[in-house]
Amino acid sequence: MKKVAVILSGCGAYDGAEINEAVLTLLALDRAKADVTCAAPDITQKHVINHSTGSEMEDEDRNVMIEASRISRGAIQPLNSLKTEDFDAIIFVGGYGVAKNLSSFAFDGAQYDADPEVVDLIQQAHKQAKPLGFMCIAPVLAARALGDKGVRVTIGNDPEIAAALEAKGAQHVECPVDEAVVDEENRVVSTPAYLLANSLTEAEAGINKFVAAVLKLA
Amino acid sequence: MKKVAVILSGCGAYDGAEINEAVLTLLALDRAKADVTCAAPDITQKHVINHSTGSEMEDEDRNVMIEASRISRGAIQPLNSLKTEDFDAIIFVGGYGVAKNLSSFAFDGAQYDADPEVVDLIQQAHKQAKPLGFMCIAPVLAARALGDKGVRVTIGNDPEIAAALEAKGAQHVECPVDEAVVDEENRVVSTPAYLLANSLTEAEAGINKFVAAVLKLA
Repeated sequence: MKKVAVILSGCGAYDGAEINEAVLTLLALDRAKADVTCAAPDITQKHVINHSTGSEMEDEDRNVMIEASRISRGAIQPLNSLKTEDFDAIIFVGGYGVAKNLSSFAFDGAQYDADPEVVDLIQQAHKQAKPLGFMCIAPVLAARALGDKGVRVTIGNDPEIAAALEAKGAQHVECPVDEAVVDEENRVVSTPAYLLANSLTEAEAGINKFVAAVLKLA
Repeated sequence: MKKVAVILSGCGAYDGAEINEAVLTLLALDRAKADVTCAAPDITQKHVINHSTGSEMEDEDRNVMIEASRISRGAIQPLNSLKTEDFDAIIFVGGYGVAKNLSSFAFDGAQYDADPEVVDLIQQAHKQAKPLGFMCIAPVLAARALGDKGVRVTIGNDPEIAAALEAKGAQHVECPVDEAVVDEENRVVSTPAYLLANSLTEAEAGINKFVAAVLKLA
């Protein structure tokens, strides 16, 4: 039974983890009988978005890990408690939470940085040759942590985001919604998911291939 | 293309809509190429639960519809704006939100009542012979609105909840997690989902049959 850590960045596409991506990932892992641990940083969200209007709820303060536990039905670990040696693979789900809570990409664009705990986790897993999966916008984390390895990733086909990844040393590969890109050398898998998906079934096709590729490397 | 309204009660198993149930329902509907409208009551949640600890977050106030829109990626209608004649079927997803925000079942047990807007919607749809689906704990709503019709539903096998439904005039039918119960006469479908499911794949099996049965009646 493969042990997989799934990293969430809150609960909701516009300020946290993309819920459909998270559930489809957990579903694919459950079908493959993986042993899953969900984790998220125990930090305050950068902001809270009213998803029905798109506007910020300025009086709200929410914690990334507590909100993420809504997706996992309660079971969640603080990100900084994870030991990479306890897992066979680590998957980062997408959503704006990756660009807001796990990195500064939503605010700083190409000049972004990522949370030091996240960078450490990725670099530690890479040193131990553990496969890593990055969905949707999460390849910004891979580029920050593994840009010096020339990591190959996809964020679909957005030239501006691709340029930001390449500025960190990553190689961007265009990829349709129903496929995944595998960097065999760095043991890194990525898929565009809701950067391109127009429906749950479109997202599911790519996510299933992505999860299968991560588990194959594990 | 079948038009289906999916009714949510927030975002999170312990104070809102069960997220896995919601996504699996939307996935099954998307595979069937249904045209989906998500809706939720525009009311304050009864309370907010920290899902990582199970305890109440007493200083938090959240709106059922705004939180539900996290699951639907923004697209949500207030429940009281729905016109049953615009839809071919209506599905109520489960989660404690049904027992807390759409009814008082979590607080009042067998003496529970349901939100008048919810009762009206169900009775209106029933009069128009529209199929109705109730997942997980949502059959408490069916029992309240259609108990006088002797509606046949399942909540799995919990004798106490079953007795509460029967006190309203409903007939309870035991059902395993991977099946759905169809009341052909009342055009009502139900499935236990996370009242019994121990995993996403277990929930998915019953939810797929449930959605197929609702669409078959539509």
